[in-house]
Amino acid sequence: MNPGCSRTQLEEEILQNIRPSALQLAVLGRLYRFISSRVYEYLSRSGVRAIIEAEGSYAKGTLLSDRWELDVFVVFQDLTREWVNNKGKDFLQEALKGLPVLMKYSEHPYVTVSLMGVDVDVVPVAGQYSAEGPKGVERTPLHTRYVRSRLNECLADDVRLLKSFMKGVGVYGAEAHVGGFSGYLAELLTINYGSFRGVLEAASRWRPPVIIDITGKADLKLLRSRYPDSPMIFVDPVDPLRNAAAAVTLEKLSNFIAASKLYLASPSPEFFHIFSRRVSFERLGLNVHAVVLLCHGDYSSTPPTDLWGRLARQVRSLASYLRERGFTVLRYSEYTDEFSTSAIGVAVAEEELPELEVLRGPPAWGDTESLLSFVSKRADEGGVALFEGYVIGVRPREERHASEIARKWAALNNMESCEVLEFPSASQRAGQVGRWAMEELLSVPAWSLRH
Amino acid sequence: MNPGCSRTQLEEEILQNIRPSALQLAVLGRLYRFISSRVYEYLSRSGVRAIIEAEGSYAKGTLLSDRWELDVFVVFQDLTREWVNNKGKDFLQEALKGLPVLMKYSEHPYVTVSLMGVDVDVVPVAGQYSAEGPKGVERTPLHTRYVRSRLNECLADDVRLLKSFMKGVGVYGAEAHVGGFSGYLAELLTINYGSFRGVLEAASRWRPPVIIDITGKADLKLLRSRYPDSPMIFVDPVDPLRNAAAAVTLEKLSNFIAASKLYLASPSPEFFHIFSRRVSFERLGLNVHAVVLLCHGDYSSTPPTDLWGRLARQVRSLASYLRERGFTVLRYSEYTDEFSTSAIGVAVAEEELPELEVLRGPPAWGDTESLLSFVSKRADEGGVALFEGYVIGVRPREERHASEIARKWAALNNMESCEVLEFPSASQRAGQVGRWAMEELLSVPAWSLRH
Repeated sequence: MNPGCSRTQLEEEILQNIRPSALQLAVLGRLYRFISSRVYEYLSRSGVRAIIEAEGSYAKGTLLSDRWELDVFVVFQDLTREWVNNKGKDFLQEALKGLPVLMKYSEHPYVTVSLMGVDVDVVPVAGQYSAEGPKGVERTPLHTRYVRSRLNECLADDVRLLKSFMKGVGVYGAEAHVGGFSGYLAELLTINYGSFRGVLEAASRWRPPVIIDITGKADLKLLRSRYPDSPMIFVDPVDPLRNAAAAVTLEKLSNFIAASKLYLASPSPEFFHIFSRRVSFERLGLNVHAVVLLCHGDYSSTPPTDLWGRLARQVRSLASYLRERGFTVLRYSEYTDEFSTSAIGVAVAEEELPELEVLRGPPAWGDTESLLSFVSKRADEGGVALFEGYVIGVRPREERHASEIARKWAALNNMESCEVLEFPSASQRAGQVGRWAMEELLSVPAWSLRH
Repeated sequence: MNPGCSRTQLEEEILQNIRPSALQLAVLGRLYRFISSRVYEYLSRSGVRAIIEAEGSYAKGTLLSDRWELDVFVVFQDLTREWVNNKGKDFLQEALKGLPVLMKYSEHPYVTVSLMGVDVDVVPVAGQYSAEGPKGVERTPLHTRYVRSRLNECLADDVRLLKSFMKGVGVYGAEAHVGGFSGYLAELLTINYGSFRGVLEAASRWRPPVIIDITGKADLKLLRSRYPDSPMIFVDPVDPLRNAAAAVTLEKLSNFIAASKLYLASPSPEFFHIFSRRVSFERLGLNVHAVVLLCHGDYSSTPPTDLWGRLARQVRSLASYLRERGFTVLRYSEYTDEFSTSAIGVAVAEEELPELEVLRGPPAWGDTESLLSFVSKRADEGGVALFEGYVIGVRPREERHASEIARKWAALNNMESCEVLEFPSASQRAGQVGRWAMEELLSVPAWSLRH
């Protein structure tokens, strides 16, 4: 235990499990030296100036024990973003020739080398910024430098705890389809509040919109106008016009707030990612149903952000469609392997709707046209009655089953070719889609059952 | 047809059915003369001064063909309300000795004589008013005089149409448990708007609160403060401080407004009481359920207003109880024979609730205590999840069937001894309670199905 570090017994025990091992750090260090020497060699051979730096958790000392990953940045001091975008990838491929390179889609060009079971991302960036300053990945070296300058060993361990907690409660990851907290944001929060506990205590008192200015001098009004929909703004210390929490959705922010309250009230290992587990509604004796639309296609050429975004819009639409028809929607989620399979799913509290549908019409004293039109429509379908001043119509439901209604929605949205699966009864429970459905739609985190 | 009377063919046809027959008027006239001569004889024998008058629909010429009824008022010119309350009933019983007298409970003393199949109410009232002026039944002779002075034959027929319409659409009757329009109010409306159609056209534009001052000089502000909860105020022309529409509830007012709109848009005989009929949800193919609590007791000594009032409160409470648990309440109603049977019933759109109950808890960012308490309660019962920022709990329902829940409500309200019946399946459909349940809870008026 570090002197001056105030942590509970539980948190120390967690740390023992999530701190990387000496072996892990040795492997990553050796890999870094190997890759950088290969690139340095090629740089000197081709007469191009660049600085090679390790970035990310490894470089900042906030890596978790189960992350075997390394980011190597090649900063081309004399070159522009345009050069990097056009030539950067080819340059690196040439430099790393002979090594096993993976191809991945990204808006920014980079190369992934797979060595000793570790995927090393080698990322070219320009040292010559455009007039607006560094953008996108160009900021990464600045972030690394900022975080390294503020963290000591104790704080770095607290960042590990916070990242593990965020993963454990499902709010970690700034990818658009996650909408959670990035590693950098976890680091900034730890620096800002001084400890893991400090972050959780602050979060337990947050009320969206949450606005945190670590610089103490940012133009918050301008930031709010630039990020009008952000439930959370954390001023990026390396660029005070940027919101380091721009990815965070209200959903994930709320989850983090609630989880912080629950952890502080009753801490348990299940809040941390290595010990986190989910308990299915089935095991709780709760007959929750999920309807899943499973689609196949060629998604390899679609930018992942677009693909996830489309799935997110589709699942929201399906959830609204089910809710409007009378279902109690408990949760929804989307899934894709970004290659050939995509799925959207909604969990509902009932398998089918009641036989009758009750429609509330206009009030008796409302305009005559609406009244007559409501009555004439309903009169054909069933009955009309007045109740508490309002006309109500009763009619039998044509579709009552969640899967029938999902199929109808699919037809309306040109997705007839997708398969409708019903969980938990579906036979596909074992595959990736099945695991996603059971995990995301049909289970609750263990830590929510212990209070 | 009366010259100057503008009515449709349909309305004239209805009138031919609802105008009393010559025989009916002859019988009632003969009865009136018989009763009044008996009372006059006794008055002169006992040296008490009084005027005998016919009141009500018969006296005003607005009687309907199916009403064989007569009100005879004995106005004791020299006597006070106190004398009438203490001695009036005995005096009349002595005067009518030998005739078949029925005993009925009422706040005001009166005697009912049953002759030739007609129930004649003989009502004593004081001619000497107290300082506040005439009260209760003392106003009846004033109402009769006012209406007679304003009605011609044509308008009297329009009153008949209006009363028949109000009965047909279920809004006629100023008794507390009906909450509808009195005969006097129907007469005032017809006088005010000049015709049956005039009333319906006005009503189709009403929007509560409806305030009508036929005197043109009433203190409406004072009236509104005296009747703050009245959705309708009709200034009584014989007492401008009184609301002649005080009995009308929002429910019945709304029904009248809606029925007026529907009748004007598409008139049909089914709006009038002799042709009105109800169509059961069963016949419409709609599986509406009703749960009825049937109780037996000795109600003969309970004032009917108190009895009906208690039943009304009970059924509202039962309806709320069912609604809070998740049922869609379509209608509720109460019934009593005012003697030994009482019943309350609620119609619901579903026979049983879904297996799972979903409880929406506090938002993640709300106060910590509420969050922890919600989570700890729900954690034992089932699952907890966060959805759209709110904690939601899912638990299996203990009671799902409407009749189980009604039984539970009965136990909580010391009504365990009442029987729980389920309609339409109940075997008691034929009795009075069964007919009431099928009529009031499980059917709709035919006129609402024809637009």
